Amino acid sequence: MEVFIEPIGRLMNEFGKLPGVGRKTAQRYAYRIIGMTEEEARAFADAIIDVKRKVRFCKTCGNFTEFETCEICRTRDPSVICVVKEPKDVIALEKLHEFKGVYHVLHGVISPINGVGPNDIRVRELLARINDKTEEVILATNPDVEGDATAMYIAKLLKPLGVKVTRIAHGVPVGSELEYADEVTLARALYDRKEL
Amino acid sequence: MEVFIEPIGRLMNEFGKLPGVGRKTAQRYAYRIIGMTEEEARAFADAIIDVKRKVRFCKTCGNFTEFETCEICRTRDPSVICVVKEPKDVIALEKLHEFKGVYHVLHGVISPINGVGPNDIRVRELLARINDKTEEVILATNPDVEGDATAMYIAKLLKPLGVKVTRIAHGVPVGSELEYADEVTLARALYDRKEL
Repeated sequence: MEVFIEPIGRLMNEFGKLPGVGRKTAQRYAYRIIGMTEEEARAFADAIIDVKRKVRFCKTCGNFTEFETCEICRTRDPSVICVVKEPKDVIALEKLHEFKGVYHVLHGVISPINGVGPNDIRVRELLARINDKTEEVILATNPDVEGDATAMYIAKLLKPLGVKVTRIAHGVPVGSELEYADEVTLARALYDRKEL
Repeated sequence: MEVFIEPIGRLMNEFGKLPGVGRKTAQRYAYRIIGMTEEEARAFADAIIDVKRKVRFCKTCGNFTEFETCEICRTRDPSVICVVKEPKDVIALEKLHEFKGVYHVLHGVISPINGVGPNDIRVRELLARINDKTEEVILATNPDVEGDATAMYIAKLLKPLGVKVTRIAHGVPVGSELEYADEVTLARALYDRKEL
């Protein structure tokens, strides 16, 4: 016989689809659900259904929204556009409460090895947003090979349009120790040094 | 403005109710759900509802079951009863494929500090199961203060009924090194030494 009865086994399989969740963790989660009241479990299930039903992509920036156009695009200064790979990067930047412009979510980066070309991400949509009110485009894709290549590609397209294009700084993380910085990062920090 | 839009924030709150899930993990889980198809999300939600609707406690042993009486109680030798604290302990023991008897889930252990007395766990139900066909009761509560105390208490109740009562062995874990065993465990292993 199976160690788990069917409904528990099935719920464990579902939890197992979440990132980083193995059998043991899935079991703990399933048992927590069993320990909930009916209303709590119903609220949990509803939240899952709701997120799929209500969340869509902003037609302007591509970020998650419940509306046609997201709150950031509706309320903020559109003259500075920060380009990121994924919606979760918007969250990371928003938590700073520093950036006052708008975003553009590419939904991926150029990655020939994975068969992702410029037409598979939202580059065309970015170009369509550029107008004479656009002052700066900040390229905030990840500081890795694909993120750098994607930034270079977009920069090449934007420069002829006369718009200022910047890239987030690469260097040693604040609060870290030089001794433990990897060589590529350290070399980059040295190369990109600033006069004080 | 809130960093997360309402449906995502709500789903993150729900995931945050699972054991060991913080904000960051809840966010990853929520994004994974958003990345699912409608059918996948629906199946996930259904599994949560189903587990609450279908899973109940076996009226004999107190383990999880979809029926009145669980499959173990219906099909296995009832002359040996293994007493455990929680349903998940049944799972741990069943994975061994060693034990051929039945279980009795106490749903807790005696814990005066938490206000849990003998009448708050399924001790009475255990006594009611003892009859002249009962050969042995194995007390497999956890090897901690409360588990030991609960085992002692149950043993005292069962002995007068003339049933053989045993306790799982305490000692150094197999494959571990003596050097790293805690003192209480090591002392217990020495005290409970067996002649070869």
